[in-house]
Amino acid sequence: MSSKHAANAGHKWVYFFGDGMAEGAADMRDLLGGKGANLAEMSNIGLPVPPGFTVTTEVCTAFYANNRSYPDGLDAQLAAALDQVGAITGRVFGDPERPLLLSVRSGARVSMPGMMDTVLNLGLNDATAQALVKETGDARFVYDSYRRFIQMYSAVVLDVAHHLFEDALDDHKLGLGITQDTDMKAEDWRDLVATYKQIVQDELGEAFPEDAKQQLWGGIGAVFGSWQSARAKTYRRIHNISDDWGTAVNVQAMVFGNMGNDSATGVAFTRNPATGEKSFYGEFLVNAQGEDVVAGIRTPQHLTRAAREQAGESDLSLEERMPEAFAELTEAYRKLEAHYRDMQDIEFTIERGKLWMLQTRSGKRTTQAALKIAVDMVAEGLIDRAEAVGRIDPASLDQLLHPSLDPDAPREVLTRGLPASPGAGTGEVALTPEKAEEMAAAGKSVILVRTETSPEDIHGMHVSAGILTSRGGMTSHAAVVARGMGKPCVSGAGAIRVNAAEGGFEVAGRKIAEGDVITIDGSTGEVILGAVPMIQPELSGDFAALMGWADEIRRLKVRTNAETPEDARTARQFGAEGIGLCRTEHMFFEGNRVVAMREMILAEDEAGRRAALAKILPMQRDDFVQLFTIMAGLPVTVRLLDPPLHEFLPHKDSEFAEVAAAIGCDVAELRARASDLAEANPMLGHRGARLGISYPEIYEMQARAIFEAALTAGAQTGAPVTPEIMVPLIATRKELEILKARIDAVAAEVGKEKSASLSYHVGTMIELPRAALRAGEIAEQAEFFSFGTNDLTQTTYGISRDDSASFLNDYLRAGIFTQDPFVSLDQEGVGELVALAAERGRATRPDIKLGICGEHGGDPDSVRFCNAIGLDYVSCSPYRVPIARLAAAQAAMAARERDV
Amino acid sequence: MSSKHAANAGHKWVYFFGDGMAEGAADMRDLLGGKGANLAEMSNIGLPVPPGFTVTTEVCTAFYANNRSYPDGLDAQLAAALDQVGAITGRVFGDPERPLLLSVRSGARVSMPGMMDTVLNLGLNDATAQALVKETGDARFVYDSYRRFIQMYSAVVLDVAHHLFEDALDDHKLGLGITQDTDMKAEDWRDLVATYKQIVQDELGEAFPEDAKQQLWGGIGAVFGSWQSARAKTYRRIHNISDDWGTAVNVQAMVFGNMGNDSATGVAFTRNPATGEKSFYGEFLVNAQGEDVVAGIRTPQHLTRAAREQAGESDLSLEERMPEAFAELTEAYRKLEAHYRDMQDIEFTIERGKLWMLQTRSGKRTTQAALKIAVDMVAEGLIDRAEAVGRIDPASLDQLLHPSLDPDAPREVLTRGLPASPGAGTGEVALTPEKAEEMAAAGKSVILVRTETSPEDIHGMHVSAGILTSRGGMTSHAAVVARGMGKPCVSGAGAIRVNAAEGGFEVAGRKIAEGDVITIDGSTGEVILGAVPMIQPELSGDFAALMGWADEIRRLKVRTNAETPEDARTARQFGAEGIGLCRTEHMFFEGNRVVAMREMILAEDEAGRRAALAKILPMQRDDFVQLFTIMAGLPVTVRLLDPPLHEFLPHKDSEFAEVAAAIGCDVAELRARASDLAEANPMLGHRGARLGISYPEIYEMQARAIFEAALTAGAQTGAPVTPEIMVPLIATRKELEILKARIDAVAAEVGKEKSASLSYHVGTMIELPRAALRAGEIAEQAEFFSFGTNDLTQTTYGISRDDSASFLNDYLRAGIFTQDPFVSLDQEGVGELVALAAERGRATRPDIKLGICGEHGGDPDSVRFCNAIGLDYVSCSPYRVPIARLAAAQAAMAARERDV
Repeated sequence: MSSKHAANAGHKWVYFFGDGMAEGAADMRDLLGGKGANLAEMSNIGLPVPPGFTVTTEVCTAFYANNRSYPDGLDAQLAAALDQVGAITGRVFGDPERPLLLSVRSGARVSMPGMMDTVLNLGLNDATAQALVKETGDARFVYDSYRRFIQMYSAVVLDVAHHLFEDALDDHKLGLGITQDTDMKAEDWRDLVATYKQIVQDELGEAFPEDAKQQLWGGIGAVFGSWQSARAKTYRRIHNISDDWGTAVNVQAMVFGNMGNDSATGVAFTRNPATGEKSFYGEFLVNAQGEDVVAGIRTPQHLTRAAREQAGESDLSLEERMPEAFAELTEAYRKLEAHYRDMQDIEFTIERGKLWMLQTRSGKRTTQAALKIAVDMVAEGLIDRAEAVGRIDPASLDQLLHPSLDPDAPREVLTRGLPASPGAGTGEVALTPEKAEEMAAAGKSVILVRTETSPEDIHGMHVSAGILTSRGGMTSHAAVVARGMGKPCVSGAGAIRVNAAEGGFEVAGRKIAEGDVITIDGSTGEVILGAVPMIQPELSGDFAALMGWADEIRRLKVRTNAETPEDARTARQFGAEGIGLCRTEHMFFEGNRVVAMREMILAEDEAGRRAALAKILPMQRDDFVQLFTIMAGLPVTVRLLDPPLHEFLPHKDSEFAEVAAAIGCDVAELRARASDLAEANPMLGHRGARLGISYPEIYEMQARAIFEAALTAGAQTGAPVTPEIMVPLIATRKELEILKARIDAVAAEVGKEKSASLSYHVGTMIELPRAALRAGEIAEQAEFFSFGTNDLTQTTYGISRDDSASFLNDYLRAGIFTQDPFVSLDQEGVGELVALAAERGRATRPDIKLGICGEHGGDPDSVRFCNAIGLDYVSCSPYRVPIARLAAAQAAMAARERDV
Repeated sequence: MSSKHAANAGHKWVYFFGDGMAEGAADMRDLLGGKGANLAEMSNIGLPVPPGFTVTTEVCTAFYANNRSYPDGLDAQLAAALDQVGAITGRVFGDPERPLLLSVRSGARVSMPGMMDTVLNLGLNDATAQALVKETGDARFVYDSYRRFIQMYSAVVLDVAHHLFEDALDDHKLGLGITQDTDMKAEDWRDLVATYKQIVQDELGEAFPEDAKQQLWGGIGAVFGSWQSARAKTYRRIHNISDDWGTAVNVQAMVFGNMGNDSATGVAFTRNPATGEKSFYGEFLVNAQGEDVVAGIRTPQHLTRAAREQAGESDLSLEERMPEAFAELTEAYRKLEAHYRDMQDIEFTIERGKLWMLQTRSGKRTTQAALKIAVDMVAEGLIDRAEAVGRIDPASLDQLLHPSLDPDAPREVLTRGLPASPGAGTGEVALTPEKAEEMAAAGKSVILVRTETSPEDIHGMHVSAGILTSRGGMTSHAAVVARGMGKPCVSGAGAIRVNAAEGGFEVAGRKIAEGDVITIDGSTGEVILGAVPMIQPELSGDFAALMGWADEIRRLKVRTNAETPEDARTARQFGAEGIGLCRTEHMFFEGNRVVAMREMILAEDEAGRRAALAKILPMQRDDFVQLFTIMAGLPVTVRLLDPPLHEFLPHKDSEFAEVAAAIGCDVAELRARASDLAEANPMLGHRGARLGISYPEIYEMQARAIFEAALTAGAQTGAPVTPEIMVPLIATRKELEILKARIDAVAAEVGKEKSASLSYHVGTMIELPRAALRAGEIAEQAEFFSFGTNDLTQTTYGISRDDSASFLNDYLRAGIFTQDPFVSLDQEGVGELVALAAERGRATRPDIKLGICGEHGGDPDSVRFCNAIGLDYVSCSPYRVPIARLAAAQAAMAARERDV
């Protein structure tokens, strides 16, 4: 025994519970695991819990830290706890007269698939079985239990294949000429026990352990071993659970739901987990053990008479069949709900008429149920509003806002891409935006399928029920635009090869033609052949109530990223408090605007560019008038032109002639200009503020459109507009100084022309690492910063979001990324730059307004970060506004808790 | 008079000098300007300086700070100084009996074009002119001086066009029927004075100022005004001179070199500024003013007899013509050189046999001269070795290492691109690398002209005398590779349109065909039609001596970026102390390597990739054996594969069939794979460590090649090799952890196979902002960091070096960039990340080795920064190694000075 272990000898490794008391409690979840903590808590509040004890998670950690050996002192503490359980039950573990049988269950902080579930009836051997036969007078029950124990223990502890036992049972029944387990007699089960033991002997070369203590240590070891199972490890990685947490082991005296027809076992929810309705909800089986309910061989019955009648079933409910036990159960579940102040998911067993509570935990529920339960519980006085707000997972709101596939409907999944924009859509395949428009005009529902999308595809995306691309990540053009539109999108479905020339796409050796019907699920990434029934979302009054409470709590403002009137209206309905990002370039692609834009790009000189811009000016102005009107009284941040000019020129050979004709130029000239403008890395190219420096007339036109629109909209609505003009891609103070001076000059000009005094703010995106580093001096020129965390993530990580799909999965699998950094802000890398820029910006200009307008603005973890570093607002796509509102409220609550 | 001004009344604004004393001194350059400080110094050391005074740079600053008004107290101090000058000369400024005439000159801290140069003879008017005629008896001299004064003053102070006066003089001579100025008589000049005054009256609507004081204030005001001239401002921007420095004004009693044949004026260098030879060197004109020497109307004569005889001229030298004045001058220049301990550029005037020193300053010189002078002065005991090392501009060494165009040769410049790689080259135009090879094989000198180059062009670049591209910046592929090869390169010559199909390129409406001869100057960016004579570089013994002294002083090690044996050898000759960056991908393009590489990329699975890599392994290993052998005893850092895989596939339609045949695959398959691998932003794509994560077998093969080569080379040379294996594009600790573990495993394997113990280091590039931020935890895995400042600049600034050419000039013109950030490290942005990463890396691992391997490693300013933040080495292209060695020495000296 090493001295390291010896030092631990005095440490408490085992916590007892039962008989109305416990050494643990519900708040000791980290030490005792969720199950152990709740068993202790139930004991403490006087519920009937079979006595037992919890071996703590610290033992698990020590076990792995010390080369898989147990800490000193554990053995003695375990023996003492066993004695205590024995004293309460009047039994002795391993005793051939009054044997104590045990269950062994794992129990980590959070429930986790891949962990060993349960071994029941531990302590049975030939001697204790005989003693139990004598005691119960029910040899059939005892040997059935015995063979179940061998089977279960062998499978989970000894790693003997489960099917060997199943096969032996089948052979046995075949030999007897019977088909049903219920036809097995006591001696049949006893014979099978012998067969089972032989199987173990044959498989392992050693006998099944007869010694009860050896069985117990085997069970505990299996629980700890399962902590490192491949499945558990994978789950931990995906859910960001530390390997160091470890699992606890719960050892409990057995109670039997299968001791005859006055025994039963069941599971229940204290409220309906699908709807949230306040009605006791669950099922039970008479004369059965817990595993039978799950196994689904027998059909369980309803707990309440009401439920039975509603379902039109004749089998009696527990309420009718065992009214006393049901009354006890009712008292127990009410006590539990009142105690935990949340809907509970409970397990119980009735042994010869006596109720035992085996488990309680917060019940999983649908988002709709979660909302209803939270709001109801506030009405019932169980919880306050803040607690209600804290109960809802912000990300789960997505499923309320979009249609979803009927989970029970069958489907043929063709392939899977990235879940790029939530919701589901069904329609006929269209391969070009033109075709999509044509089909939509004919009244068809369309899914636009492209290798990737570009701003020129917007009109086709608008008319489609969903977008599917074979390339691009979670923040590719298709994904970002689809989220903005609230349309489902599956991106980066790499197995798809789009072949427009042949009029279809191939996937997994299968050809899908234009016009064929497919369904996409933007919440899972599934691409499905044919139509799948949908469930339409409903926004309940509960939703409105809860969002209202969230708004009372949060400090962060929530704006939206929107450039179309439609998006702006949607966002306001969802509670947006202004526009944080209006991407003006999206306005340049429609109709004859793109023609004027191309004329500008092809112009030989500034005069030519100005002439073309003059055509765009009135259209831009009208756009802004609409947005300012919809957002009357709320701030609107307009970002000046950002993408490189070649995005506005055709890219495909087939388009050049058409485009040249449209703008009346030579094809060769158009090609030459497109070739001149082509860039190796457009993301790092001649774009953003760099365009503003090279072609002052572009930003001047845009500034004029904004100022004129502000005056018009202000006059129309009576609410003066104070536009926020945002310069993208600033890397140096000087760039902003030059561009701000020009914007100021345009403001002065417009003010003079209209004899009006203009109120406006000029600020910048912080979306380059250098801008973050130099934020102190950039703030000399900027009245606000908006963190463009999409581009900031691209540059800080050196990862193009359009190209990341090719290695993202490798990175998630290797555990390099725990999450796609374009979905949830990389707080320790990109986040350090954001925090540093906020700090340096405020040092220069204490009242600088700070917000975030990247895709991260709608991600709850990122919203929490934004709140923590003191930003003023987040801005996200319209459909994520409710999520951001809720996340902001929870972030504020968390921050207050930390401050207390 | 504002109170602000009044507060300055007691301040000293004016510094007197003359008659063997001065209020200023040479070290007061910031206050007095260079010229003023040196005039004071010359006075102090007893040289004959016409008395005068300096109006300080603070007056200039105050002038602009206070809305172009002079500070209080200046007027009185100026009057007092005038009196002092008058007392020494026995004259009075503006006095109609014994008038004092003055010169007014500007003088900033550094000499600066665009500043007002000189106004001579100030104080002349009709009355003082008459007095001077009386005094000198030389009316012709006086009226000639008078008209010169009006002409000069009008042009520089009153802004009257110079040509008006030239025209009037021509008219006058025409009227007289003469052609030479020397034929003008006294009265002709006097008449011309009247005409000149009329011109001023006509142009300005007011008379030329007769009042001497008014003339003086006008002159002073003109100097200050010229500080803000467009040309001066541009110069300051380009040379990074602060607008706040201001200029001083030097006012001095006139002396006359044009008072007859016993008068003269001249300029001289104390040593030969072209060769550095220790011989007095200069020229003079008898009976002339300073401007005449510069104007070039009369041919000046030699100063010394030796020079005259060597040139075979008959006109007597100053030494022969005025031996006494020459003796005085000799004493003066020797005194000056000894005093300043540097070669001086002096101006003097002899007035009626009396020598006056007008100016001294450090003389400009060629790099070759600078080297010789510095080394000679050490031998003479004038300066020590450190001072000699400090005297050479490291960047200037470039011209010693490369051929340059004869500056006097005529040339027809077609266009200008970026000076991407220094030196000059002449040859016939080749448009493809294949054509270049063919022409080179035929013994022709070739200039490879491409839109841009890619790694596939390397073989063509190797055989060319120079590279010209129409696209790409200072760190584009062409630029980087050319610098590595020491070949001249002009990149981003945007006016050129390469048309390979038509077999030529167009520039400025002119067609140049393949085979036509052009010349490029990679030091200036010029593209020239035809051949231009070259000057070949010579490396003198002085160079070796000075570099040796630099090596004694510097702390930073200097390594080279090299992957070919040729580059490695060149770099060692230039003093490289190892390889800091060996880019292994460059090794993959040659011959059948690229075929194997393509096979690997097209392989269906890992086994297929491994089979292809097995073919590359022996070639890689041989490469490394060669490098390790050349660098025996020195460290070699090998970077594992970095570029995205699509770089190895063909890009042009025409190449697919050929390549498919070579590797024996289907064209359609090759196209599909190329299309799958294509990236929107390759710079931010699936490359570097990301390839290592996705395809472990690639890095495993490379690690094996390195380890096996290390053992082989170590055995052959007897010097054990400790390779440094560098993983590119790390963004997270985890990536490096995974890849390092694999490299360690390969090392263990190779060690076991060869029964050898391997010594090696694993480290990483820090080339992404996130890597810099997380350097603390990355250092847990990295034994060294090499800052890849090219990519770090790209990501920090969000600028693609391949695309920056389109706006770089706009940015330089607007003053946003003072230098291309890919040429000189952006110290305040990118530099902050480098410094922070160094600090965080060292906090984790105090002995971590830190270096820089971006292009900045050869830039003197960047080297100084690397020294200041305590890096261990810089690594640069072979031809920049001497520059880095010298810059490192100067950086060490500067750092020691700061510490003192």
